[in-house]
This record gives sequence, C-alpha cells and structure tokens, in this order.
Amino acid sequence: MSLVRPRVDCIEGYVPGEQPQDGGWVKLNTNENPYPPSPQVVEAIERAARAPLNKYPDPLATAFRRAVGELFDVDPDWVLPANGSDENLTILLRTYVDPGELVSYPYPSYILYETLADLQGADHRRLTLRPDWSWDVEGARETINHSKLVIVPNPNSPSGNRWDDTTICSLIPPRGLLVLDEAYGDFADEPHRMQLLQSEHGPRIVVTRTFSKSYSLAGLRLGFAVAHPEHITAMRKVKDSYNCDAVALAAGTAALLDQQWMLDNCRKIRATRARLSEQLERLGFDVVDSQANFVWATHPERPHRELYEQLKSQKILVRFMQFPDVGVDGLRITIGTDVEIDRLLEALADILRSS
Amino acid sequence: MSLVRPRVDCIEGYVPGEQPQDGGWVKLNTNENPYPPSPQVVEAIERAARAPLNKYPDPLATAFRRAVGELFDVDPDWVLPANGSDENLTILLRTYVDPGELVSYPYPSYILYETLADLQGADHRRLTLRPDWSWDVEGARETINHSKLVIVPNPNSPSGNRWDDTTICSLIPPRGLLVLDEAYGDFADEPHRMQLLQSEHGPRIVVTRTFSKSYSLAGLRLGFAVAHPEHITAMRKVKDSYNCDAVALAAGTAALLDQQWMLDNCRKIRATRARLSEQLERLGFDVVDSQANFVWATHPERPHRELYEQLKSQKILVRFMQFPDVGVDGLRITIGTDVEIDRLLEALADILRSS
Repeated sequence: MSLVRPRVDCIEGYVPGEQPQDGGWVKLNTNENPYPPSPQVVEAIERAARAPLNKYPDPLATAFRRAVGELFDVDPDWVLPANGSDENLTILLRTYVDPGELVSYPYPSYILYETLADLQGADHRRLTLRPDWSWDVEGARETINHSKLVIVPNPNSPSGNRWDDTTICSLIPPRGLLVLDEAYGDFADEPHRMQLLQSEHGPRIVVTRTFSKSYSLAGLRLGFAVAHPEHITAMRKVKDSYNCDAVALAAGTAALLDQQWMLDNCRKIRATRARLSEQLERLGFDVVDSQANFVWATHPERPHRELYEQLKSQKILVRFMQFPDVGVDGLRITIGTDVEIDRLLEALADILRSS
Repeated sequence: MSLVRPRVDCIEGYVPGEQPQDGGWVKLNTNENPYPPSPQVVEAIERAARAPLNKYPDPLATAFRRAVGELFDVDPDWVLPANGSDENLTILLRTYVDPGELVSYPYPSYILYETLADLQGADHRRLTLRPDWSWDVEGARETINHSKLVIVPNPNSPSGNRWDDTTICSLIPPRGLLVLDEAYGDFADEPHRMQLLQSEHGPRIVVTRTFSKSYSLAGLRLGFAVAHPEHITAMRKVKDSYNCDAVALAAGTAALLDQQWMLDNCRKIRATRARLSEQLERLGFDVVDSQANFVWATHPERPHRELYEQLKSQKILVRFMQFPDVGVDGLRITIGTDVEIDRLLEALADILRSS
C-alpha cells in the first residue's frame, strides 16, 4: 500500500539538466550565466556571513522589496521575493488553483509548468505553438477561456523567441490570471520594465523574475514576483514565513543596486549570441532568432541526439530536447563565454565534417 | 470576484513572532540561539561566496546528505535537505495528503501545522493534550486511526516538554505516517539520534530537523528530513529541483562537521535554562520542565498579556501565547545569554513587585 498521493505517485518528477559535479566541462545546458556575479554581491554575502545569522531574516524582506520597487518604479507592496522563480510558480499554483481547475501553457515550452500543475492536482492543457513558434491564439481561445492560470515564459524556452505585448495580452484568461515568466527578460534587445502591469491589463498579470540568469546567481536561489498588491497579499499567505534567507536577500539587494554589472554581462551575451547564431547557420543549422541567453538550433539532416552525445563525449554539454508529440526536437545551447562558444563551434564543425 | 482559492482566501496566514528590525532588543520570542554559528560556518559561507555562484547548486546536495548520513549512521538516501523545516513540512503534506484527507497534531502546540494543512485543503483535527502536557492517547485514538499524517513536535512548543518513545510510537497512524518534528531535539538532556527510525516502527516515521535552533542558523533557512528511502524518494518528486542554495548547503555541511561548537552552545543553554526555570519559580511562576531552548511559564495571579506588554515596553520581547478554547495562556521565553536572562529576570522582579 503506497501512502503517497496518487497524483504524486504517477508523476516522474521534473528532471533538471545535468549538473556534473566534476570539473572540466563546457556547460551550455542549463542557461547559466557564464560570468560571475558583481563583486558587490560577493561582498554583501561576506558581510551577511558575519551578521547575526542566529537570528531569523526579515520575513517581509523590506530592503529587498524596496530595491525592486525602485528599479521598476512600483511600490514595495507589489513585490514578493521567493526561493527562486520555481517557488513563486509553486506559490501561484497554490494560491489560485484548486484541484480540478485548469492550468494551460504553451508547448513546446518549459515543461516544469506541467509537473507543478500535476503536484497541485490541477487539470492542465498544452497550447500548441505553430512550427515557427508563433501563437495560434484563436485555436487556444477555448482552453484559455476555461483556464484559471495561463503560464507563459517570455522569452520562451527552448526557442528563445519573444512574443509581443499584443499577443501576450490576448492570452489573459477571462476568469483567471496570466503568469508571465520573464526569467530571460533581461537578455532581450529591449528588456521589458513591467510596463504591462501599468496598463489596463495590469490587474490580471503576475510577472516572475529570477536572479539565476541575468544576475549570475543560479547558485543562490532567489527570484521575485511583481503584481498588483492584492495578488502579492494573497500569495504571501501561502509562502513559508521565512522563505528567503538573510544571505540571499542581502546578495539580491546588492545585485539590484549594481545594474551596470548585469547590463554589461547581458550586452556581452547578446554579442556572443549573434556570433553563435551566425556561425551555427554557416554550419547548416536553422537557428531561431533569440532574445534569451540560449539559442534553439536544429539541423535538417543530422540527428540531434547524436550531436548531443558526440559533444558530450568531448565534455561539452548542450541540452538535447524532444517534444515527440509535435515532432519537434533540437539542441538548446546556452550562450557561454566566447572561449566556450569557440570550443563548441570547433567541435561541431569537426563532428559535421566527419561521417 | 476573488480569484484566490476559497481555502486560502479564508485563512489568516501564519503570523510568526515579532521580528523588530531596529536594534536594542532583548529578543526572547522566537527561540533563536543566542550564540553565533561556528566560525567554520562563517568561513564556509565566505568560500561559497567566491565559488561560481553563477552555476546551479548540486540538486542532490550530495556532500550535505553525506554529512547528515555520517552523523546519524544512515545512508545519504535517507536524507532530504530543505529550505528550513517549514519547507519539509510543506513537502510532506504535498506528498502524502490529498484534499479532504485528515491531518492531526497535538494542541496546544505549533499552530503552523494547522495553516499548512489548510493550504493543502486537508481536513485537520487537534489532539488536545492534558493540562500537564501529557497525551490522552486513548482519547486521540479514533482521530489518529483516520489520519494520513500525525505531526508531533518533540520537544513540544510552547511547553518544552519531551514525550517518551513509547508514547511517540503509540501515535503512529495505522494508515499513515508520523512526522516527528525534532526542531528542538538537540537541546534535550539526552538528544535522540534517530534511533526510532531503526526500530520496527521506523518505516512509518519521518523525522525533521533544522539548523535554525541548535546550529544558530535561523538566518540561513536550512533543515533536513530523515526517513526510510522510499519516503525520501517520494518527497523528492515534490520539492523544487534546486530547493537549497549553494551557500546554505556549504554552511550546513560545515555546521554538521563542527559538532563540538553546537554541543557546547547547547550545554550553555541547558545551564541557563535550569537557572531561568529556578528563578522564575522563585518569582512565583509555574514552569514546565523543559527539554528545549525555551520555557513555558505561567503565573497563577498576574495576567500574562500584561506581563508581556510591560516587558515589551522595556524592549524585552517574550512570546505571549493563548489557546483560548482550552483555557491556556502563558509566556514562552527563549533561553538567551546569561546577560539577557538576567535583564529579563530583573525586569520581571520589578514588574511583579509593583502594583
């Protein structure tokens, strides 16, 4: 007799990208930032280490929320920090979705949404994107109309493209909320600055952001949601009292205050992204125009799984992803440093030349 | 129209103890350790700050689980770290309890269990303790028999007493699990070392521990569960992929490796606890024999809320707690440093002398 909830018993659990713990890898598989966090972040952590860690952190994360508020010109009551964007997504499901209610999301996209909906006992449906990664909004309309939450990553993963505001607003469910997962938002040529929240659609949108990508802090687990205060108040009831630790909050606050560091890294990543995209196309790949810190590359002839395996045998990790029910597979390649990308391109050129 | 789940809409949310952010307080209200964490922990955090924080942490927390395993002589597969014990309790509810299933816990006790059960849509029932904080096991039997989870803090809060193993094992639900919340376990005169998990009852018990109390790391948010591997495997499906950050895991591992530091602090706290209990009794309080880092004190004549307010006006914070439906109220006083406890005792003596 299993004591586990049937819904949990039958899921696989989300499998994150490989995280080899030994050294020597060119790691281009989990969209980490190749550059270190700001030196001010490192100093903030060192200061936090010597502050009274025997005391609980500020449960309201006052200083952190103020820094986010100043950055996006919103009141701190619009901000909820969390233990990574993952936690904010879980909090959103637990705040708004009763078992049996409907959650929908684009497909192919970030498959974690499905696991989270399963854990909450929600019904869930995929909104299949067109082969060019654009929305079939009319085809999705019926499902959206019945959804409590529609969760949309923008830019999308694995494709890296970004949808325009008009499209995004057309996805708001009439009796629910649109969750806009902007994990990769800072890598766009013109990043959003929460403008949609100030529009007439604002009250029906929750934006989630993370420090894992643009701020180079995947190791730290910190994210935040921005939304009208009634949503933040409801979500706060669901979160653990002290969901963010004192060290992460101090580091996150320092990261927000050093915008220049983050912006400089994003600029470098955009330049490398352009170069990688161009070189991959020269090697015969089709590459989606990316607004994120990765590109989605498909080769018209070579099996992607083999390319992935051959790269892996050279200690170069990219992400092989397949979405068999829509006949999509390919390689999602994180933008590394220029040196890492050169190594990848050389290896790929060799592989494609041989056999 | 509220979009929030009705179950969430109608709860208050757990209200943690006051956390004043200004200085100058004698803070004896949230059971923090008055002593700092081990210097080795501080060094581990500083090292982690300079390690590649742009990379995700080890999702399996291998080094940390190995350290816990060595401490309690179990395989690392028996261990699940979490973002504080709070997260492990949430994970347990989400792994084992479907909406409508029954969760029960002693009362008066840690009221957070009720909030967590509410959030999961569970039914929940209080198992009322006798006035001397002992169990009426036969009176609780019917509820236990229908429970999916029985959650028991041992030592209990706010009373601080610890129940013996025979009593604990009699609380295991026949079609569910007993969650043994040992947040205060290290402060007992003879701490448990997960022996119950090795007994015939082991497969039906999950123990949760935290670094917030004995390891002086409330600011860091780290806890762990220990249980037979089938439970850990199920719980792992529910947790976020990277629920513990690299800094917290490094700090926790260092804390585990410096047992002497923790044991020395616990010894000091036990000595202060004995002195505080004795002095409170001299001042006319009834004090429960505590195995935790706090004492539960009641005064036969003076209203506890007034005592709390009068102490607070002198910047001394203790926890006034009331459980009106069973006619219980009193003061839960955290064991601070000897200097802090002297200040408390002087203030209390003054207050009791006057009026």
